[in-house]
Amino acid sequence: MSFTIQNVLIPAQHGYETVDVQIEDENITAIAPELKVIGMAINGQNKLLLPGFINAHTHSSEMWQRGLIPPVPLELWIAELYDFAPLNVEQIYLSALGTAVETLLSGGTSVVDHLVLIPGQELDTIAAAVRAYQEVGIRAFIGPLIQDQSLTSGMPTGEAKQNHPAYFRSTEATLELMEEVISQFHRPDEGVNILVAPTGIQLCSDALFEGCIKMSDRHNICRHTHLLETKAQKQLATEKYGCSAVKHLQNIGYLSDRTTLAHCVWLSDSDIDILAETQSTVVHNPLSNLRLGSGISPILKYREAGVNVTFGCDGAASNDSQDLLEAIKIGSILHNITDLDYHHWITPRQAVQMASFGGAKGLNIAEQLGSLTVGKKADLVLYDLTSLSLLPRTDPIGLLILGRPTQAVHSVWVNGKQIVADGKVTTINVDNLRQELFNRSQWDTQRQSQTIPQIEAHYRAVMGLPEGVLGYS
Amino acid sequence: MSFTIQNVLIPAQHGYETVDVQIEDENITAIAPELKVIGMAINGQNKLLLPGFINAHTHSSEMWQRGLIPPVPLELWIAELYDFAPLNVEQIYLSALGTAVETLLSGGTSVVDHLVLIPGQELDTIAAAVRAYQEVGIRAFIGPLIQDQSLTSGMPTGEAKQNHPAYFRSTEATLELMEEVISQFHRPDEGVNILVAPTGIQLCSDALFEGCIKMSDRHNICRHTHLLETKAQKQLATEKYGCSAVKHLQNIGYLSDRTTLAHCVWLSDSDIDILAETQSTVVHNPLSNLRLGSGISPILKYREAGVNVTFGCDGAASNDSQDLLEAIKIGSILHNITDLDYHHWITPRQAVQMASFGGAKGLNIAEQLGSLTVGKKADLVLYDLTSLSLLPRTDPIGLLILGRPTQAVHSVWVNGKQIVADGKVTTINVDNLRQELFNRSQWDTQRQSQTIPQIEAHYRAVMGLPEGVLGYS
Repeated sequence: MSFTIQNVLIPAQHGYETVDVQIEDENITAIAPELKVIGMAINGQNKLLLPGFINAHTHSSEMWQRGLIPPVPLELWIAELYDFAPLNVEQIYLSALGTAVETLLSGGTSVVDHLVLIPGQELDTIAAAVRAYQEVGIRAFIGPLIQDQSLTSGMPTGEAKQNHPAYFRSTEATLELMEEVISQFHRPDEGVNILVAPTGIQLCSDALFEGCIKMSDRHNICRHTHLLETKAQKQLATEKYGCSAVKHLQNIGYLSDRTTLAHCVWLSDSDIDILAETQSTVVHNPLSNLRLGSGISPILKYREAGVNVTFGCDGAASNDSQDLLEAIKIGSILHNITDLDYHHWITPRQAVQMASFGGAKGLNIAEQLGSLTVGKKADLVLYDLTSLSLLPRTDPIGLLILGRPTQAVHSVWVNGKQIVADGKVTTINVDNLRQELFNRSQWDTQRQSQTIPQIEAHYRAVMGLPEGVLGYS
Repeated sequence: MSFTIQNVLIPAQHGYETVDVQIEDENITAIAPELKVIGMAINGQNKLLLPGFINAHTHSSEMWQRGLIPPVPLELWIAELYDFAPLNVEQIYLSALGTAVETLLSGGTSVVDHLVLIPGQELDTIAAAVRAYQEVGIRAFIGPLIQDQSLTSGMPTGEAKQNHPAYFRSTEATLELMEEVISQFHRPDEGVNILVAPTGIQLCSDALFEGCIKMSDRHNICRHTHLLETKAQKQLATEKYGCSAVKHLQNIGYLSDRTTLAHCVWLSDSDIDILAETQSTVVHNPLSNLRLGSGISPILKYREAGVNVTFGCDGAASNDSQDLLEAIKIGSILHNITDLDYHHWITPRQAVQMASFGGAKGLNIAEQLGSLTVGKKADLVLYDLTSLSLLPRTDPIGLLILGRPTQAVHSVWVNGKQIVADGKVTTINVDNLRQELFNRSQWDTQRQSQTIPQIEAHYRAVMGLPEGVLGYS
């Protein structure tokens, strides 16, 4: 399919220019004023064209618990999350659809799904998410969330030695599973990419990381993990390794120019140097970092050190949305309070670059994606600048990033194929999706986690908090 | 007009209950299950009814500059804002319409407009805003923004003594103007309230504050001002008064149980005690505080000290939106990073209470507004819980506050009159508004403030920043 977007605004070196953009098959083939129309003509007047953004870290199945978990830190939040994790493959499919739709309608064309697997139905879980993403047509990067240590291992022990139950699946079996996943599902040409994605140092052995490194090299696939999201994890890393988590990951060889690291809140200056040296990418999830009280990731320091940074929504149980423009806005302006010198603050144009090119770079596909460049793949978003939320006309990118755009995404193409038109996803029936999500849920506000009461006293002690019990309201 | 909302969810002590709500004329007259239908029947099924929120601090005419001002701190930002302030009464009217529409569609039923006045057309400016708010039907609190010192007085001098040009209008003339404004426009029964609203200690003399206090007492109207938004203002207060700005405002008698104070970022613990003692209300504007790098207002401390807190969007040139739900979300979760003890974190239900009852209390109308209570005025918002952004069904208030609701506001009533139905404002033609905003603006990204280059060197010196010049991109 070929098409030509006519008279559309695109960002220029300074300001904007009005151009035509030709797309043939899956690629951008020309960008210039007054081009000949090839294929279908698309009216770009009063619209802004940008490269699609990348939702570079989420967990789609958390959609089933959004709005529900009380304001608590990660270590307690995750206990409740797992107490009520969806155990039904059809739910996985539906929440992947929902995640894809919300990402698309907020400027994203790719999603990195750090996918929680249903025990015993691991391949079915992944198949369900793949099916959803292919039906919608969003570009998918699926990192099956793996670990080989049980949940209680994820908390620092403090003074006391603790014994943790063994995880239900061995390291070896997990690595075998991942080989199978790659063989069955890794199809970059069809828009589905598998990542190795051990959940993080808090729940993974070195053997698991090392197995993933080999697999990543063998199959030329990217690496993903959570890194130092909370203060408790920093404390745990010291207990576990006697050095920082970043230093340890460097030592075992996990960090690289195709490694994306979600969160990176509690890094020291020397840790930051290691990220720069290894060309690793930080995925900034500002909303979940606030919601869980994890802290402010030192994004301005990363940028100053030359570390590549991009944005993610994180799972919808810790955000509790998948609005990528919201994550980009907050992930930009949040840092203004961390540095009195406004010359270092992130501008809206820099934020666009981070969300598009920054994401592509972290996923090792910057040669194919992440900018409006002839020869690159047509992952494109067309914004309607006549939306009330983008008026009056001022600086389109300023309005998009610093405002609160609503119904602003007009059209989306992924790999040259149109999947949003006139503000509506065209590939699936979103009303049916809403009906399914409605039917399979109920307004349930009285649930209480079984696990939080069991672990809260230990958490409070080890974090130096006074005794007390969470009141649900 | 009477009507009955049937089978609607409302928050109960724990969880939710399904009730009918009767409204007669402008008041809520009954709330209970299975009431007799009075007047028109409204289907409340799968919907949540909440009291309307109060957008407790904004500057409507900033809408003309949203998305446009580069990331700089308040003291430079305001210079650019004033360089390009709208000077056309019709613009004031249109941006008030836009502010009202965006507030309504994000859960607000009242707006506090700290309205910048066009010099020489002060009464016309206010008349234009009043006309807009009455046409839309939103409840309006208009605080004409007054000052009696010129802009450069608003920056700390550091070591050097500085002479500032006189402000163009005398203190006396400004107070006379305010008397005229009150006499012409203060009509609480018609939904229009005037506030005294000197802009802040940085640009106002004691004589101006004192004149406003007397006027507030004489006419029984509320008081509003900016307070300690930036570190520079704290520094200035020390230079100006030799004590904290809060102590000074207490000394002259400006603080009271009908005083709302926008921002309150740089208060000490003893300042906080003064706010509690005087029963003043803090209006939290989290998004502009981040955007301008002002800092994090210590909201958890205010709550602990018993200080009433509510939320505002602030003007759209420093946010750059008027989405009240976004301000409430960020204004809630932002503070989780300021206190390791999550038992102090704001819950979604507390946020709803702050945004509704907290706002009403600050405006001295908590007996009439701010909760679903029989006898109170019907300022109501009905949310559609089948919006994709509020699915799957979990905790409706959790989804509303922690999520990113889109197209979730189904109906709005102010003073018993319906002004939003089926997600659309019914009182004005929003498409015409969009067209007007479009026609009166242009995509202009090359503008540069004349004043910023003049004052930047002084600002950087006095704030201890290295020499340098802002690069526009």
